[in-house]
Amino acid sequence: MEATKDFKVTLTQNSRLKDITLQNIPFGKCFTDHMLVADYSGGQWHTPEIMPYQALSFEPSLAVFHYGQAIFEGIKAYKAKNGSVQIFRPMDNFQRFNASAVRMQMPEVPEEIFMEGLRALIDLDKDWVPDFENHSLYIRPFMISSDHAIGVRPSENYKFLIILSPTGPYYAKPMRIYVEEKYVRAVPGGIGFAKAAGNYGAALYPSTEAHKKGYDQVLWMDAYEHKYVQECGTMNVFFIIGDKAITPGLEEGTILAGVTRDSVITVLKEMGLTVEERPLTIDEITEAYKAGQLKEIFGTGTAATIAPIKELGYKDFAMLFDVDKWTVAPEVKRRMDAIRYGDVEDRHNWLWTV
Amino acid sequence: MEATKDFKVTLTQNSRLKDITLQNIPFGKCFTDHMLVADYSGGQWHTPEIMPYQALSFEPSLAVFHYGQAIFEGIKAYKAKNGSVQIFRPMDNFQRFNASAVRMQMPEVPEEIFMEGLRALIDLDKDWVPDFENHSLYIRPFMISSDHAIGVRPSENYKFLIILSPTGPYYAKPMRIYVEEKYVRAVPGGIGFAKAAGNYGAALYPSTEAHKKGYDQVLWMDAYEHKYVQECGTMNVFFIIGDKAITPGLEEGTILAGVTRDSVITVLKEMGLTVEERPLTIDEITEAYKAGQLKEIFGTGTAATIAPIKELGYKDFAMLFDVDKWTVAPEVKRRMDAIRYGDVEDRHNWLWTV
Repeated sequence: MEATKDFKVTLTQNSRLKDITLQNIPFGKCFTDHMLVADYSGGQWHTPEIMPYQALSFEPSLAVFHYGQAIFEGIKAYKAKNGSVQIFRPMDNFQRFNASAVRMQMPEVPEEIFMEGLRALIDLDKDWVPDFENHSLYIRPFMISSDHAIGVRPSENYKFLIILSPTGPYYAKPMRIYVEEKYVRAVPGGIGFAKAAGNYGAALYPSTEAHKKGYDQVLWMDAYEHKYVQECGTMNVFFIIGDKAITPGLEEGTILAGVTRDSVITVLKEMGLTVEERPLTIDEITEAYKAGQLKEIFGTGTAATIAPIKELGYKDFAMLFDVDKWTVAPEVKRRMDAIRYGDVEDRHNWLWTV
Repeated sequence: MEATKDFKVTLTQNSRLKDITLQNIPFGKCFTDHMLVADYSGGQWHTPEIMPYQALSFEPSLAVFHYGQAIFEGIKAYKAKNGSVQIFRPMDNFQRFNASAVRMQMPEVPEEIFMEGLRALIDLDKDWVPDFENHSLYIRPFMISSDHAIGVRPSENYKFLIILSPTGPYYAKPMRIYVEEKYVRAVPGGIGFAKAAGNYGAALYPSTEAHKKGYDQVLWMDAYEHKYVQECGTMNVFFIIGDKAITPGLEEGTILAGVTRDSVITVLKEMGLTVEERPLTIDEITEAYKAGQLKEIFGTGTAATIAPIKELGYKDFAMLFDVDKWTVAPEVKRRMDAIRYGDVEDRHNWLWTV
């Protein structure tokens, strides 16, 4: 590894890689040898530094602790069959990151810091990308406000970081989902489309209540009438009704514009399905179920790719599915994996080689 | 200062107090010699520690950076005429803090940690309470999630802190306020009633847009119809219409249950006004203005106490006020200050002596 021209690089003197088996590591608890840190102050971004993964020192007055200016992204890198490391659609995450930054009144991160930082960091820690089936390297870029002062205003200082976490296969056990009619995730005019920390913290209580009722997650409804489907836990959601795939549209700004969602729409169309992005009510869903037309429901996201939903509970009515007989969701997952691990040609230019 | 029985106390060896003049310090940038830190892990709170104010070490995977479980309170302590230090209604803030904790799926902080911690910390740093007119010690209790792992779930570890900041007089310059019809602060079923960090970060973009239009803050409207008044910037809001004071009610859970709001309601009633807590539309406000019945508008909060609003802009219509001729807002502020600085008897038991 040469020192990258535009980054200050400090290498670890004590790699932890030799002590770790990269197989079946639980999600989000193990981090690679290095991280990237870039500071924003005085109205500009300064030269990023790649340094050993380490704790940082923050005063208790750190702005993000008090006023929640914090955004993040989730991206995955894969060890392809040819040995190269491939990142899945990072430009899309980069663009969404900056859309989140604008909404949270944070400075946009320049492409050369985000994308070239990603490339340099992963190149340095490429031996941490697991070379096992269904494994990947989870990439977490994030930004926090870092003024050391309390007072409700946009910070003048920010910190952008990228950390990397090798992760084992995500077994998407078919889920039991509950239609949430009381708690609301997002409203038009709010921050639902942004990958802002506050959206996740606000969802934990309703999710925990669903767990107490025996469900894995909630299916969020719209804020106004509690009848239009939004998203599922922290995933976008697709319904296979007849020969169509239906997923809520993005126009209200209340759901996350998932990169996996967009990829799945493309793959579904390639499979010959009609895909509709449009308002979808829980009544239309229950009626389709009763008529035998609701075939499959699945969530989509970076972590799970495709997460089948075996039960959807709406008030006292349980919609049950025999996931083993599904045809669409498994085929979408198979095609997505084939692209990500380089088994088939990447015709959409989704992969970005380190 | 004796070591408090139930707290571990480490005193600073190098007080900064001798280097500081406590007069006219800007808000939120100067902190006292000590802080309180209590850790939650393994399902319980551990013995709090009072230690020198200092930076702490956190890994980049710190949960609050990613998923925004963070809540806070704002309380003020005053140097009374008799020399004692008086805290204004801290039990109310303590109870609201724990209501916020529940909504954000965080552990409630025991009274002996929050209230006795407050007392012990302020007693230790009591020489930091400014002894100048209109000055106070701002108290910032807050809690953050502190797992060192990324993954959307409630943390298992939390950190509760109290930091103290001496502050000069808050000159509540009469404000120009803009009726916000596009962006939304909170919705029923959301976290609007909680003093959660995410509520503040989400409000910064709309506030900045208002600044660009020449306004100081926004007046938030309801999420459904954008016609019912909610709150003003980060303050509750009161309208004096005829001989009544009207302020939005708390029943929807979309506005903060301000401690100052509650105190102002009490004082207004003592002044002989009828106080109505009820839904209030922007149409009712404009009609009252046109009829010459809308006399005063003011925000209420811990920082400003009473913040007069000299202009309310709704679409292209500007409602203008001659603040110098007002009678209600100045009298409320005078009575509130008299209580807080010990000039009159504390008949409501609002003060808590350290």
